[in-house]
Amino acid sequence: MPRVGVLGVGKTKNGFHRDKSLRDLMMEASQKAIEDAGISPKNIQMVVVGNSSSQMFNSENNLGAMLSDHIGATPAPSACIESACATGSWAMYVGYMGILAGLYDAVLACGVEKMTDVSTEKGTFAIAQSADVSTEYFTGLTFPSGVALYQARYIDRWGASEEDLCHVSVKNHYYGARNPYAQLRFECTVEDVMKSPYVAYPIKLYEICPMTDSASTVILCREEMMRESGKEPIYITGSGATSGTYYNSTDQLEDNYVLVERAAKPCFEMAGLSPEDIDVLECYNAFAIQEPLGLEGAGFFPLGESWKAVRDGLTHHDGKIPTNISGGVLTKGHPLGGTGTSQAVDIVEQMRGNFTGVQVEPIPEIGMMINRGGPGSVCICYTYQKE
Amino acid sequence: MPRVGVLGVGKTKNGFHRDKSLRDLMMEASQKAIEDAGISPKNIQMVVVGNSSSQMFNSENNLGAMLSDHIGATPAPSACIESACATGSWAMYVGYMGILAGLYDAVLACGVEKMTDVSTEKGTFAIAQSADVSTEYFTGLTFPSGVALYQARYIDRWGASEEDLCHVSVKNHYYGARNPYAQLRFECTVEDVMKSPYVAYPIKLYEICPMTDSASTVILCREEMMRESGKEPIYITGSGATSGTYYNSTDQLEDNYVLVERAAKPCFEMAGLSPEDIDVLECYNAFAIQEPLGLEGAGFFPLGESWKAVRDGLTHHDGKIPTNISGGVLTKGHPLGGTGTSQAVDIVEQMRGNFTGVQVEPIPEIGMMINRGGPGSVCICYTYQKE
Repeated sequence: MPRVGVLGVGKTKNGFHRDKSLRDLMMEASQKAIEDAGISPKNIQMVVVGNSSSQMFNSENNLGAMLSDHIGATPAPSACIESACATGSWAMYVGYMGILAGLYDAVLACGVEKMTDVSTEKGTFAIAQSADVSTEYFTGLTFPSGVALYQARYIDRWGASEEDLCHVSVKNHYYGARNPYAQLRFECTVEDVMKSPYVAYPIKLYEICPMTDSASTVILCREEMMRESGKEPIYITGSGATSGTYYNSTDQLEDNYVLVERAAKPCFEMAGLSPEDIDVLECYNAFAIQEPLGLEGAGFFPLGESWKAVRDGLTHHDGKIPTNISGGVLTKGHPLGGTGTSQAVDIVEQMRGNFTGVQVEPIPEIGMMINRGGPGSVCICYTYQKE
Repeated sequence: MPRVGVLGVGKTKNGFHRDKSLRDLMMEASQKAIEDAGISPKNIQMVVVGNSSSQMFNSENNLGAMLSDHIGATPAPSACIESACATGSWAMYVGYMGILAGLYDAVLACGVEKMTDVSTEKGTFAIAQSADVSTEYFTGLTFPSGVALYQARYIDRWGASEEDLCHVSVKNHYYGARNPYAQLRFECTVEDVMKSPYVAYPIKLYEICPMTDSASTVILCREEMMRESGKEPIYITGSGATSGTYYNSTDQLEDNYVLVERAAKPCFEMAGLSPEDIDVLECYNAFAIQEPLGLEGAGFFPLGESWKAVRDGLTHHDGKIPTNISGGVLTKGHPLGGTGTSQAVDIVEQMRGNFTGVQVEPIPEIGMMINRGGPGSVCICYTYQKE
């Protein structure tokens, strides 16, 4: 399988962007990526936006054409893709397939969400629509209450205490506080997490990501174009994509990790890699519990063991598998459609040795991202290598 | 370039589906397509939904996972794509790229929109969000008023009268009346069209499509899988995709046809075909004027000549280039995200000789579809051949 190069990356800060529109955010991240790639907008042959809910948050639609027009890539074809919280990874996937198909040389994938212009009530309803509205939302099974079910089951099944799991938030806040692009930039202790109010037992406020405004852009290209660019090459060498079920399904509660397993396994196989090879990992954690579930699903730790690994520092920047050294979406903020591309940008920065926050040393040779979404309904993984 | 097979198709009737949900419509069309393809849902390796505005119309999102789960294709990866009125064609394009990339054998692409559950006001606002909301919608440049500008310019530039252009609606209504899957099933005369109220001068009510509830599904597959199926093979042999600009741009008013030209030209080139080779054509016509503009953009008639061709019967089922023998979205109804897939299903039915309405004779060997969208911001074309 030919590989796909990552020619350029760009990102905005995450947070409240009162002075910028959805379009401004897309433009800022994309112009940075184009500059980083060292190409002209006219070299971009396809534009894919990843966005989950712009009609609810911003009364805008057809964002692919909007970005293509404003960035100067028109007449390159354009579209906007949505796959709950795996939306950004799917935007990359469309470009990845277009390049592997031999149809395109260079594709711009921009993930974006501007969530803070509406009331929390409206925002919560927008997000809830990624679950099964007719059978879940209206019966009270929202994202926090759904995740609470499998967090409770994890605690019960594997003997972790609530305090044990708090270490996930403590670790992510440690790194978020050191990443100027993150939204929540303060450290916290296990006691702080325990004292934060319950949102849906046993989930506490500090175990849930904030809504945020953010865009991030990745420019993908043919392998030859990467080589000829003169830049240090970084390639996507493995990919895996899957879908799953809803909250009201056994595998979401008892065996939640399988969603990640089904995407990570083919990803490792395509790349010819195993978890031991990975130097830096971005693992989706809109809810803290999803970080250990991802670590176990991808095989970094045995089932029921990863909460100990996080507690004992094995996922810190100098640990066995540096995980969410960006602070994760738990503290960076979770721009639904922008999260996948944000993970990709942060991994590429780590592999280039110029990450905006804590840099993993030695500079990582091999990176991986795990981007799950929905109630447990979608997941994409990618591996990144320099050769 | 390897070709991609069309293994199965399915469609719902268009209209007011008071008794069916968005999901029901997707399921109905997709189950028909799976049955038609003669495969099991487990053979589907990727599910792509094309939908423009389900958050506005139905308070639902993440439709890819919804369909994948309910159709029984999970754990196949899934997503939902949006590109204004070219959304359905983009859903097919994602599958097409995934197959050409060698990643997938069989992909289900379902285009859907359920538009009639909300007020006309809310629906109109949902649609308007596919234009540039900040610079167009709030200044009054909605879809009808934007298209009116280029319809007026067409009349002025090419010497067509308002009555001349009415023949587009008369022809589409003739065929829509004979297609039980269409929403507007009555014939009309030039006088009827002229008497229908102005929506935005010079556009009259009978020159605009209705909102509708509809889903249609296409199952694409590798060339080898098509051959081994035992079915009469139909392949996508050419594709072309492009983006354009907004209403407030010269090329949308003076040279509106160029949007289609930029998608049709590479499509013909890839297939090694020219307009003379096409036996049956579906040409997007949410507004009647877009049919002559598409015919000219794709090169079926010289600039400024196609309105005469329509008037003189050259686009009827027994004419030079049978165009929108389905009735077109002008009378079938225009389910934003479902229109592209609906065009594909109707062409495949024509090429199989079992179209639900007026069948073109002799049975077409080569078909084509032109699916534009937005203010003039997106377009995809495909050609279909039996060998």
